[in-house]
Amino acid sequence: MRDVSIIGIGQTEVAEHWDRSLRHLAGDAVLAAMQNAGVETADALYVGNMLSGLLTGQEHLGALIADFVGLRGIEAVKVEAACGSGAAALRLGYAAVAGGLHDVVIVAGVEKMTDTVNAETTTGLVMAADADYESIHGLTFVSINALLMRRYMHEYGVGHADFAPFSVNAHRNAVGNPYAMFRRPITVEQFGRARMISDPINLLDSSGIGDGAAAVVLVPASMAKEYTNGRAVRILASSMATDAVAVHDRPDPLWLSAVEASAFKAYQQAGVGPRDIDLFELHDAFTIMSALSLEASGFAERGRGVWLAEAGEITREGRIPICTMGGLKARGHPVGATGIYQIVEVVQQLRGKAGVNQIGNARLGMAQNIGGSGATVITHILEAEA
Amino acid sequence: MRDVSIIGIGQTEVAEHWDRSLRHLAGDAVLAAMQNAGVETADALYVGNMLSGLLTGQEHLGALIADFVGLRGIEAVKVEAACGSGAAALRLGYAAVAGGLHDVVIVAGVEKMTDTVNAETTTGLVMAADADYESIHGLTFVSINALLMRRYMHEYGVGHADFAPFSVNAHRNAVGNPYAMFRRPITVEQFGRARMISDPINLLDSSGIGDGAAAVVLVPASMAKEYTNGRAVRILASSMATDAVAVHDRPDPLWLSAVEASAFKAYQQAGVGPRDIDLFELHDAFTIMSALSLEASGFAERGRGVWLAEAGEITREGRIPICTMGGLKARGHPVGATGIYQIVEVVQQLRGKAGVNQIGNARLGMAQNIGGSGATVITHILEAEA
Repeated sequence: MRDVSIIGIGQTEVAEHWDRSLRHLAGDAVLAAMQNAGVETADALYVGNMLSGLLTGQEHLGALIADFVGLRGIEAVKVEAACGSGAAALRLGYAAVAGGLHDVVIVAGVEKMTDTVNAETTTGLVMAADADYESIHGLTFVSINALLMRRYMHEYGVGHADFAPFSVNAHRNAVGNPYAMFRRPITVEQFGRARMISDPINLLDSSGIGDGAAAVVLVPASMAKEYTNGRAVRILASSMATDAVAVHDRPDPLWLSAVEASAFKAYQQAGVGPRDIDLFELHDAFTIMSALSLEASGFAERGRGVWLAEAGEITREGRIPICTMGGLKARGHPVGATGIYQIVEVVQQLRGKAGVNQIGNARLGMAQNIGGSGATVITHILEAEA
Repeated sequence: MRDVSIIGIGQTEVAEHWDRSLRHLAGDAVLAAMQNAGVETADALYVGNMLSGLLTGQEHLGALIADFVGLRGIEAVKVEAACGSGAAALRLGYAAVAGGLHDVVIVAGVEKMTDTVNAETTTGLVMAADADYESIHGLTFVSINALLMRRYMHEYGVGHADFAPFSVNAHRNAVGNPYAMFRRPITVEQFGRARMISDPINLLDSSGIGDGAAAVVLVPASMAKEYTNGRAVRILASSMATDAVAVHDRPDPLWLSAVEASAFKAYQQAGVGPRDIDLFELHDAFTIMSALSLEASGFAERGRGVWLAEAGEITREGRIPICTMGGLKARGHPVGATGIYQIVEVVQQLRGKAGVNQIGNARLGMAQNIGGSGATVITHILEAEA
């Protein structure tokens, strides 16, 4: 199979875009990525999206967006894996280029979560869970994560305040990201005082609802040199793993086995280990997910994820910077787009174009996008090209 | 890239399965395909589905179904391209095997269109059209096709009765298919008398709403010989093309340019032409789509599709048999599953296992799955292996 490089990135601000429809958001990101890459056409467009049908009455986004960006006729399809839809689309785009099916593939993620038509956004989000055995009983997606957080606190003897560093770090990093939704710092005290959403998850444990789109352009690494607009970034590894959708079907709810499987397959493909990773864009939909992801990905011992954060090791100056542009918490989490935002941000760091948020010596970056509460996990490892 | 073979097929009856949930339907088809192939595991599962979110409150079908069939942990994702979702998933499964990413891939299509939760089925189906410029004005998916049919009748001077042979042929073929929804013949007179749905489309111009699932197992052709349960069928060509989603954005609404592009790319890849195709499972969601598909795929001149049918050339004994197991019209059209049903039926014919519906000398079969009223078109050409 061929090596694959990312030669262009594009993103919109994550916000309540009441004046921009789904296709406009996607179009903005795709056209920005094409311009950044210096390409005028593409062989295919893969779109990550979770909620467009339920919330805006529009499916069939592949053809719709391809046409809207001036690429009528090309292969185009939507890919869905709940909140992991963005990186799942990247995974399939990677496969198409690596396998020789296509040379130039655009992968976009888009989500319009405000101005909904058929249902409320929370009704949409819980479709990531098991409809027959979880949501039918009234569980929302937040409450499923609340059960996990409560269990974590009980099992490992930690308090709610111990999760504060995840949220404080994310908000601190969002300040320097012009595309972030919440560009203001928060304090530990504010974190503790935030209003309760689903005990023990409060407002500042949770990522926000927003609209946004992000896109990348992929080509075979051998072709990347033909494009000069942006420094290319190599995809060293791409992997996907799954788990039971319903949390009660997992032998150990506090161990995200699909995170472990996906991350370690990626390490193997890239020929690296956790200690080689310079930054990690993880899926901090809730603070509990940050802790669990760090543990199952090999950055902290079981039950020690919160202490890694407490020790300051997740900041831009720490051992393993996470959410360097604000993460899901503060950049915002337009669910089907999030996986591509993560990739865009890793590329910014590896190119040395992360502005005031630039971390030092960024050579290897990892992005991990999660569908549901750990049922689909897609991990990519990217490397700055010399 | 590697040649790819289909080594197993599975399907459920298309029906109103009030006692079977989405995961049960998909599970039945996937397990049947695995048994038919003689495989006990797989590297990945790609699921074609359009409506599960809106109609049953469940997204995230990849992980959900993988777990349900005993394949917890494998790569799994949902693919959506409106009514073309099934074949779009096959296209990506084909790419993964051909490109070397995976060796054993299961591709399933599933749709549960009865017992809906959040919305009516027609609200779901129109998500294949343009929400901002078509359905917002009250157009349903049937009425969009009715506009096309009316225009065809006007432009080419044909009457409603001239479409009867499509429906009569489909129903005749469904009689011999135990998986078909409407296993009874109809007459030209019944066709003419059927109640109006959206003028000029009446009940017998239209495919029915039903629940169902179908699945296939793919491996590299070089590995197909290891499996002995069923005769392998080679995928000679796989292609996808798109068009504007909104019909009014197309320069010529009566010419399905994505059908043409997809079919002729497939002919080129397979090194064949329309005259070499022994059977054609086309996307007869409405009788008008049969006529337009035959024309843009090169089987009839422009405006002559109905006359090919009138001349009996689309029957099992004709020049180009279509809908040999009942087609969307009479086998039923569980939208996201349809593209895989078509593939399963071509495989049945090429294996010589189509029972009383077996056509003579079936060597090359073509299947064409359409999303929306021609906006996404996926064509596969299959060949019986020696």
